[in-house]
Amino acid sequence: MPGEFALIERIRARAGRRDDVVLGIGDDAAVLALPPGHELVVSCDTLVAGVHFPDDTAPADIGHKALAVNLSDLAAMAATPAWCTLALTLPEANAAWLDEFLDGFLALADEHGVSLVGGDTTRGPLSMSITVHGLVPAGQALRRDGARVGDDIWVTGTIGDAAGGLAQWRARGPASAKLRHRLDRPTPRVQAGLALRGLASAGIDLSDGLAADLGHVLAASGVGARLELGRLPTSRTLADHFDEARRWTLQLTGGDDYELCFTAPAARAFQIEQAMAAIDLPVTVVGQVEAGAGLRFGTPDGDAWTPPADGYQHFSGGHA
Amino acid sequence: MPGEFALIERIRARAGRRDDVVLGIGDDAAVLALPPGHELVVSCDTLVAGVHFPDDTAPADIGHKALAVNLSDLAAMAATPAWCTLALTLPEANAAWLDEFLDGFLALADEHGVSLVGGDTTRGPLSMSITVHGLVPAGQALRRDGARVGDDIWVTGTIGDAAGGLAQWRARGPASAKLRHRLDRPTPRVQAGLALRGLASAGIDLSDGLAADLGHVLAASGVGARLELGRLPTSRTLADHFDEARRWTLQLTGGDDYELCFTAPAARAFQIEQAMAAIDLPVTVVGQVEAGAGLRFGTPDGDAWTPPADGYQHFSGGHA
Repeated sequence: MPGEFALIERIRARAGRRDDVVLGIGDDAAVLALPPGHELVVSCDTLVAGVHFPDDTAPADIGHKALAVNLSDLAAMAATPAWCTLALTLPEANAAWLDEFLDGFLALADEHGVSLVGGDTTRGPLSMSITVHGLVPAGQALRRDGARVGDDIWVTGTIGDAAGGLAQWRARGPASAKLRHRLDRPTPRVQAGLALRGLASAGIDLSDGLAADLGHVLAASGVGARLELGRLPTSRTLADHFDEARRWTLQLTGGDDYELCFTAPAARAFQIEQAMAAIDLPVTVVGQVEAGAGLRFGTPDGDAWTPPADGYQHFSGGHA
Repeated sequence: MPGEFALIERIRARAGRRDDVVLGIGDDAAVLALPPGHELVVSCDTLVAGVHFPDDTAPADIGHKALAVNLSDLAAMAATPAWCTLALTLPEANAAWLDEFLDGFLALADEHGVSLVGGDTTRGPLSMSITVHGLVPAGQALRRDGARVGDDIWVTGTIGDAAGGLAQWRARGPASAKLRHRLDRPTPRVQAGLALRGLASAGIDLSDGLAADLGHVLAASGVGARLELGRLPTSRTLADHFDEARRWTLQLTGGDDYELCFTAPAARAFQIEQAMAAIDLPVTVVGQVEAGAGLRFGTPDGDAWTPPADGYQHFSGGHA
């Protein structure tokens, strides 16, 4: 079993290297060159075994997800991913586990042109903290505080699948491989974020569920909203496995989909549909921004609806 | 007991904000503006309770140390600290603990003009990962690979104190408060790092002990070195508590001092002494860079010496 330095050397040997990495893994710190006229976008997320992923998750899936949830934050800011650091805490220096973890982590990094430029390995209960760095032309980051009354509220892809997969895993009953795949292998909507520069008025990624995450946008923007539950984009698989009421709860209060939720003036709807069609990503208007704080829900038959209170706050907490 | 979002709000309310923070805590990511002509320097270190600090360490000391070890990496690169992110894993959402932790963390951040711009809180065994960001004029980072045959090897301050404090804590016998203070409250040598721009040929911070850390510089530079054990800068307190042979082992193989070790051509010795005198930091030549890989040790009476093998690799591992 190799020691910690051997683990780091294993990581270093496999880390990609962009041209703007002046100095990568192997010194006290990385040195990175930013293009002129750009701002640096930084986000940081931790995953803890048993909290953010089931204990039986494959190492490659953990590696994928750990980076994906961080890239998702860059997507929500309309930033281009550039570099990341990885702080990995392992119960033991297990080279085989590390190699599989890196398979998932580095495949996604390569896909998005991200260089792993530093990090550390420590002994302890399995967890990992990743800090991702992206670039955005100065002033063009997509923030949470730009939603205006009358804006449409959009969601990419379908939502509720990951929460459905988690619910099935917890119930230890029949489980859909498709739903579990959405839980284990989220797709960060990086291209969508970039395509929304100049179109969306505010944005966030869906890590904690639509109600909580949209709630952050509304609070930051000083507005409220009405969501039409009948319009929530729903996969065939989710509809096959859960009835309507259960589905709405999963979609509103379950997290881990890592789709984007964004707002935009209604006049931009056609441009947004075109931009998302160009990257083959379905996109759906699910409600409207309204005056008056808070989130209201409408059902297909016009009734009001209140989500169950216990779904709102994840054990895993939020991030800043 | 507040939830995770309340903890983040507590952190956000106390985080300082530099003018170059376009967007701080509270969105999906921070947005940061770099000055023209500068490169970004990024480092990341994790601390785990019971591994990187004794379990009885005061929360404020943990907060100080967690940031200090990261700032020390920037110091070793001759970078000016700018921003940091904090990923904090706590066994329970304990607001009183968090407040004390932030007392130590933010006091040191303020001292160095560092803004906390993001992070997250998660539930789990106590640990924290910090990513620090610094700035350096393009091309002026102090790297590990610049040591040349004939260079002097320098060390700031005194070394072995933190390892002495840890040895006493482990022995559960008489303990020096001064040594324990060096273990709990390391001083990152940020000013020294900045003063060494253009003077030092290579540098590293002493986190794993002089032998291992200098070894990284030598390996990166393709050279060897001879250390004179009689010249190792030693505090009166360490000399009072440990005999010579034990002291050498602590100084060479114990970590956690966070002094800087750097190399420089002998012709720069006077300038270096002047620069360190200007910031009131003692600095000592402890050996010379030689041809031929590896590290050799000379004793005051001219004998060769070999450090005990078991002190070389920390349980806590290294960082990339």
